Amino acid sequence: MPDHFHDQCGVVAVYDHPEAATLAYLALHALQHRGQESAGIVTSDSGQLHKVGAMGLVGDIFTEEAIARLPGRIAIGHNRYSTHGGSVAANIQPFMVNYGLGQMALGHNGQLVNGQQIRESLEAYGSIFQSTSDTEVVIHLIAQSLEGRFTARIVQALRQLRGAYAFVLMDEECVVAVRDPWGLRPLVMGTVDGATVFASETCALDLIDAQLVREVEPGEMIVVDKEGLHSSFPLPPEERRSCIFELLYFARPDSHIFGVCINGVRKRFGAQLAREAPVAADMVVPVPDSGVPAAFGYAAESSIPLEPALVRNHYVGRTFIEPSQSIRNFGVRLKLNPVRGSITGKRVILIDDSIVRGTTSRKIVKMVRDAGATEVHLRISSPPTTHPCHYGIDTPTREELIASARTVNEIRDYTGADSLAYLSHEGMLAAAARSGAGYCTACFDGAYPLTPAVAPRNQLELFQP
Amino acid sequence: MPDHFHDQCGVVAVYDHPEAATLAYLALHALQHRGQESAGIVTSDSGQLHKVGAMGLVGDIFTEEAIARLPGRIAIGHNRYSTHGGSVAANIQPFMVNYGLGQMALGHNGQLVNGQQIRESLEAYGSIFQSTSDTEVVIHLIAQSLEGRFTARIVQALRQLRGAYAFVLMDEECVVAVRDPWGLRPLVMGTVDGATVFASETCALDLIDAQLVREVEPGEMIVVDKEGLHSSFPLPPEERRSCIFELLYFARPDSHIFGVCINGVRKRFGAQLAREAPVAADMVVPVPDSGVPAAFGYAAESSIPLEPALVRNHYVGRTFIEPSQSIRNFGVRLKLNPVRGSITGKRVILIDDSIVRGTTSRKIVKMVRDAGATEVHLRISSPPTTHPCHYGIDTPTREELIASARTVNEIRDYTGADSLAYLSHEGMLAAAARSGAGYCTACFDGAYPLTPAVAPRNQLELFQP
Amino acid sequence: MPDHFHDQCGVVAVYDHPEAATLAYLALHALQHRGQESAGIVTSDSGQLHKVGAMGLVGDIFTEEAIARLPGRIAIGHNRYSTHGGSVAANIQPFMVNYGLGQMALGHNGQLVNGQQIRESLEAYGSIFQSTSDTEVVIHLIAQSLEGRFTARIVQALRQLRGAYAFVLMDEECVVAVRDPWGLRPLVMGTVDGATVFASETCALDLIDAQLVREVEPGEMIVVDKEGLHSSFPLPPEERRSCIFELLYFARPDSHIFGVCINGVRKRFGAQLAREAPVAADMVVPVPDSGVPAAFGYAAESSIPLEPALVRNHYVGRTFIEPSQSIRNFGVRLKLNPVRGSITGKRVILIDDSIVRGTTSRKIVKMVRDAGATEVHLRISSPPTTHPCHYGIDTPTREELIASARTVNEIRDYTGADSLAYLSHEGMLAAAARSGAGYCTACFDGAYPLTPAVAPRNQLELFQP
Amino acid sequence: MPDHFHDQCGVVAVYDHPEAATLAYLALHALQHRGQESAGIVTSDSGQLHKVGAMGLVGDIFTEEAIARLPGRIAIGHNRYSTHGGSVAANIQPFMVNYGLGQMALGHNGQLVNGQQIRESLEAYGSIFQSTSDTEVVIHLIAQSLEGRFTARIVQALRQLRGAYAFVLMDEECVVAVRDPWGLRPLVMGTVDGATVFASETCALDLIDAQLVREVEPGEMIVVDKEGLHSSFPLPPEERRSCIFELLYFARPDSHIFGVCINGVRKRFGAQLAREAPVAADMVVPVPDSGVPAAFGYAAESSIPLEPALVRNHYVGRTFIEPSQSIRNFGVRLKLNPVRGSITGKRVILIDDSIVRGTTSRKIVKMVRDAGATEVHLRISSPPTTHPCHYGIDTPTREELIASARTVNEIRDYTGADSLAYLSHEGMLAAAARSGAGYCTACFDGAYPLTPAVAPRNQLELFQP
Repeated sequence: MPDHFHDQCGVVAVYDHPEAATLAYLALHALQHRGQESAGIVTSDSGQLHKVGAMGLVGDIFTEEAIARLPGRIAIGHNRYSTHGGSVAANIQPFMVNYGLGQMALGHNGQLVNGQQIRESLEAYGSIFQSTSDTEVVIHLIAQSLEGRFTARIVQALRQLRGAYAFVLMDEECVVAVRDPWGLRPLVMGTVDGATVFASETCALDLIDAQLVREVEPGEMIVVDKEGLHSSFPLPPEERRSCIFELLYFARPDSHIFGVCINGVRKRFGAQLAREAPVAADMVVPVPDSGVPAAFGYAAESSIPLEPALVRNHYVGRTFIEPSQSIRNFGVRLKLNPVRGSITGKRVILIDDSIVRGTTSRKIVKMVRDAGATEVHLRISSPPTTHPCHYGIDTPTREELIASARTVNEIRDYTGADSLAYLSHEGMLAAAARSGAGYCTACFDGAYPLTPAVAPRNQLELFQP
Repeated sequence: MPDHFHDQCGVVAVYDHPEAATLAYLALHALQHRGQESAGIVTSDSGQLHKVGAMGLVGDIFTEEAIARLPGRIAIGHNRYSTHGGSVAANIQPFMVNYGLGQMALGHNGQLVNGQQIRESLEAYGSIFQSTSDTEVVIHLIAQSLEGRFTARIVQALRQLRGAYAFVLMDEECVVAVRDPWGLRPLVMGTVDGATVFASETCALDLIDAQLVREVEPGEMIVVDKEGLHSSFPLPPEERRSCIFELLYFARPDSHIFGVCINGVRKRFGAQLAREAPVAADMVVPVPDSGVPAAFGYAAESSIPLEPALVRNHYVGRTFIEPSQSIRNFGVRLKLNPVRGSITGKRVILIDDSIVRGTTSRKIVKMVRDAGATEVHLRISSPPTTHPCHYGIDTPTREELIASARTVNEIRDYTGADSLAYLSHEGMLAAAARSGAGYCTACFDGAYPLTPAVAPRNQLELFQP
Repeated sequence: MPDHFHDQCGVVAVYDHPEAATLAYLALHALQHRGQESAGIVTSDSGQLHKVGAMGLVGDIFTEEAIARLPGRIAIGHNRYSTHGGSVAANIQPFMVNYGLGQMALGHNGQLVNGQQIRESLEAYGSIFQSTSDTEVVIHLIAQSLEGRFTARIVQALRQLRGAYAFVLMDEECVVAVRDPWGLRPLVMGTVDGATVFASETCALDLIDAQLVREVEPGEMIVVDKEGLHSSFPLPPEERRSCIFELLYFARPDSHIFGVCINGVRKRFGAQLAREAPVAADMVVPVPDSGVPAAFGYAAESSIPLEPALVRNHYVGRTFIEPSQSIRNFGVRLKLNPVRGSITGKRVILIDDSIVRGTTSRKIVKMVRDAGATEVHLRISSPPTTHPCHYGIDTPTREELIASARTVNEIRDYTGADSLAYLSHEGMLAAAARSGAGYCTACFDGAYPLTPAVAPRNQLELFQP
Repeated sequence: MPDHFHDQCGVVAVYDHPEAATLAYLALHALQHRGQESAGIVTSDSGQLHKVGAMGLVGDIFTEEAIARLPGRIAIGHNRYSTHGGSVAANIQPFMVNYGLGQMALGHNGQLVNGQQIRESLEAYGSIFQSTSDTEVVIHLIAQSLEGRFTARIVQALRQLRGAYAFVLMDEECVVAVRDPWGLRPLVMGTVDGATVFASETCALDLIDAQLVREVEPGEMIVVDKEGLHSSFPLPPEERRSCIFELLYFARPDSHIFGVCINGVRKRFGAQLAREAPVAADMVVPVPDSGVPAAFGYAAESSIPLEPALVRNHYVGRTFIEPSQSIRNFGVRLKLNPVRGSITGKRVILIDDSIVRGTTSRKIVKMVRDAGATEVHLRISSPPTTHPCHYGIDTPTREELIASARTVNEIRDYTGADSLAYLSHEGMLAAAARSGAGYCTACFDGAYPLTPAVAPRNQLELFQP
């Protein structure tokens, strides 16, 4: 239950469906877990783009009246939790602009490592920026390209970018989906009623009854327009480095990305953890909801019975009045409540997927102990999180990550658990390996596949008019 | 996942706490599952009652600004889903009125069987009604009593009422909690920081860190005022008939009511079901969230592995735009999505807690089969629901209850499951019996403990001035 | 510009028009000046009453969606500024209730002098009150009458009431309009498209294109139902005492009530004032908007040119952010700004309709002087306001009325004017006399026509069941 | 009452005041008549700009919470009714952007004649546009300038622009105010508490207690920063052509712009009209509010008494429910109502300031005649409006302007008046001349001082990097 890891973004694109905005809206709804701060949809109708975007949840923003302002058969959409750039309205994606060839729009899941550098170059040459998001550089690069066609301009822009991205783009006539060469962020393609759909995860396809066609490949750019679907690989290939955190925490368990069934891989993480860190106990209790699949795996492997002894309150709002007379573990208690009758007098294994700052785990351990558990053993279905993410996940700084400076025993003492064990790095990779993909594990080992590169200044300058 | 059973109401009362409104608000938050249509709180300060109430969810209604309008150390609160009386603002409880002795307020969980009849008598004698709720008769009876004290008037009113109720009442100085003689609806008493708290379920006590003292007994009336706590039993005793549907579905699994731990009893229902209706299969899949504990019990008893293969989307809003091009099983799909990778090629036992109209079960069975299950066996952790409730649960009419006119085999065919079994009546009672309580099982057998009585007209007339 | 006198209420009723709610809404819009705090409309359709009411302005409350919730051919409506009873939602009129004969609704402009007394009697007999408004006693009296018909019950209720009132009532089938025997508050009757309309002022008839038929007479009760229009005078006649403040300030200048054209009578007040209190000056400047007609009269009579040298800002909202660095005369300046170029070096006669506390007049005088006026002469088109109103006008207490304890010369000094004169009592009555009506002038002389009467207890007790 | 002429924009700037945002807000409130569609304020604090902007009225947008989000001692603000560019959120000014030197913001009152042309050039070179407003080109020109300082870049941008403008600009450190060389739009400078304030009209200075210093001169650019106030004239001088429509209709009567007191000049228009077009009548009736000052002038000059016989309802909202059974003259009647008692049997001279399409005048004439006038003479205090404005006033097209194709007699017949006369062109100029300014009278004679110029392409190209 790492609330402290904030979700990143979700993207969707629909080409040639009579209810494109509604499908985009439903897909964003299925991807709501990837970003709860703002959402937007852009559609194209009669040669004109239309945008609705606002702060808030998908279901609150896209009323019938809002959908009615989004006519057309082409749409892209975006859910956002700010990972880079502030929480202001100007940052609500998709970005939609007027430029030399007409109008275009862009949604981005990920983070550019040379975004700031390109932005400074562009500003030096007179570009103005509306948002504080580096993603805005992408539309400037497209607008300033001298190529005659939208898609050729996108290629020119991509050649100047380094970073993690799943892009969805559109102009009045076409939709374009692009994934970075390392395959850091997920992007899948499906089809429904003859229309083509792109989305961050397969759960979005499921909701709109779209069939999964395949994942967009790392480095692949797919254009869909009235002549059909065109795939190309405009950038040099890189070694695959898909984000392992998607498997561990971010993606929905019913999704299938990076060639992996998320629920299945999480159960394997749990089973592996049971093999690596067994402990005598009366029950395995998942921390809902993120710890659930790993707990099933742990329980099955260890033959210790599973018990749903932490109950989640699903009506938690986001703003909250706390009594001034403090209630013990108030923040956690709003979301979770232990089943005292099941726990009292029992030895409990708590399964969670990660520990970030440690404060939440500490509260949960205390709450379970207060409910009568005689022993509380904490098992984490990932290795210690030691490094921040630079590719689109809003992790805290190194200073805030408890595992960056403390040993496992120190963390155990901090949380108050009787024992604590993490999944090993090797165990994690072995469980994830079934897909054949290579993974970015920088948050566990600091091995960043992309460093903030030296400015591609020459390239950029050549490109200016 | 019986969405078609609408939740009833939740009540709370707080006596002598400096943040009475905040505690009431938090308790209503914990009881949100009992009524999502409207909520209200009344407090007493400096001899004056204050009310805030609105349609909507607790977290949306009780902003900081709203809580600031609720000063005082005494509070009662109410969550509502209309079971009797329309969805209009005038029906938002607690009812708060001015009468001969000053002001009073009332919140009611349950349903009166002679409410309509009393209402007609009162109207014939000149009473005016603001709401369409029969609960309003209670305050008229109190106002018209010639007794000199609020509590004595309550007793006079109770003697005229028949029905299911957990009442919380207050005037400027005291709080009163009452439970009907059959003990149909739950009501518990706790304490925090020296203050007394009443609430429908213990999960509300847990959130505000209150210690459970005991349940209010069937037929008991507890008054709390500056002289302390006074218990009395003003009505003739009746045979205990607690609502078994609270155990099966309504109460939160982390609550402990009717002497029973809800999570534990649901697991026992599931285990009993496994003994009664075993089937060879590869996995036990709970229908979230209500089917979860029974599934744990079924899996443990049957030694068939549990699999979280239906994933719930927690961001489901209440109004929704459906594409006109219909998506298969759209309504269910918004809330649940199968984990295809876990299900494909497997024999699945689906565990749910009830079947009401059958339409939802049919969609879930189809969804699971579409996801690749080779067999789908449906197991229901309660007997067939054949009769409507008259005591506060918003069940459909007999005509709409699929089990009222169809055999189990017919229902199996309707849902499309390969097999279907319900928990037996005896099995259910055996599993529930641990508490020693007698249960109302009218929804399963039509054995209603209270019939809409002949009008206690004489009694009422004696009472008029 | 006496902001300190708060407007009272406006009422409307429509019988047998296909767009009854829309007409009621438009009429309330035309009567908005009589009450800006809350508004409500009740309609009858298919034997059922429907209500929409809220705090706020008519135009904000009655959206298309709100009007759609008000079907039917019969409607009553009410605008309110609280004159008696607090600013709470429970006080929003029309009151709508269920009672022995079905449903009824009531709107009241005025104030009952024995309301509190009746309320206490009713509460002693067990009645409950939702609002803090004494008007609610009227519906209790109607509900408790043993008469078989709604209209007969209204008569019984009227016989127990003393006070100022223009009532509009309705049940599922009829509309009733009643005016107190003194004729204190205005009420007119009109017709449009065959429908009958009642409203506080003729300006409401004008907006909906209704023709004025006549005023409802003092003490008259008019019932309109499917058998037509029935007039009766159920109460003993009293000497006519129409509220002269309606002429001086409250009514809209384009209205015609009490047999008088408001604009015309206000001009006569101004002309009379010019005869009584002439002064050598360069221009007559009205204080907008209420001082305008009297200023026209004063200027015409005195042959001193009129100058629109105070400009009103019509976009004044009701909540406002004031800079902490205070601006001179900020409150007044938000509404009024002097035309410096017209005023500089001139001797100015300011015409206003009343002085209540004196603070606003003081600010206006200073503002005009700061704009360069060499002399500022204040002329008030009514006598000094010395006594509070008990019949429906929200005047301040005697202590707050500057004229209750100070001489004209003291008030002149307080306001800073070079000279000050009020219209004489005789001059006022002479100007108003054209209608032949007698007037209540209690606010100027303390001669209250109705004193808070001794309790009609016997009458009331006879009446109880 | 020409509702059909939509107001243009209002601008304000504040330099070095501790409550800069509050002053800007109050000034926008005073300028609300210049634009009711949207409003925005940008402030600078600690080297960072902050913006709040929304559709709606100033009083609704700038709540205390909104003002709290606008810290700092420097502010610019803008009111808008779209004159060019659609009614979309992206068009809400001030525009605020990030560019090479940091951040800047811009508000514009007026219209550029070469805006579209510059926009096309900029887009051809890769600029992206957020809004559909041509004003956005100004910030691109500033951003692309190679000059090192903000103010030098503004000068470079101004040299490429042709059109009507009063600009307020700011960066983190300074405020800049600029007026076009023809002086088409007004802009005044004042001082309060040592702070410098710019605003479209003096009425904004009055509200915040600022002293008028002087008008910004045509072609003048004034920079205010920590080193003080710097005036320059960066563009070649042009012949002065101030917009005479500001005098006739747009500006508030209490303002003083173009060296003229608006109330005074309007009275002179009315007096001149009385000399040019006398008629025997019983009363002069102004059409509120815009016809008021001219009516005062007409009445004084003609010695015919003035009568406030059309009453304006100040509570007119912007959305409105019209009964389907149409009410005669509904739209006008919502705003105006005749005082029947004053008009009946009288010969009326109606004074209005302009006739645009003629439909409103026709309704007013009919309404006055229906109220009993025996004769209705229409007198317009400006010449016939024959040509659309290209400099910032949202006039209809030529086809819609009734005077563009019809004679005065034809218009008289259309409106139904007994006689109709307009102020002569010469009479208007004579009355306005007191200020010594030259005026743009293109809306009356088609003599446009600026034609949409040939593209200054060379200049632009030289300027690109």
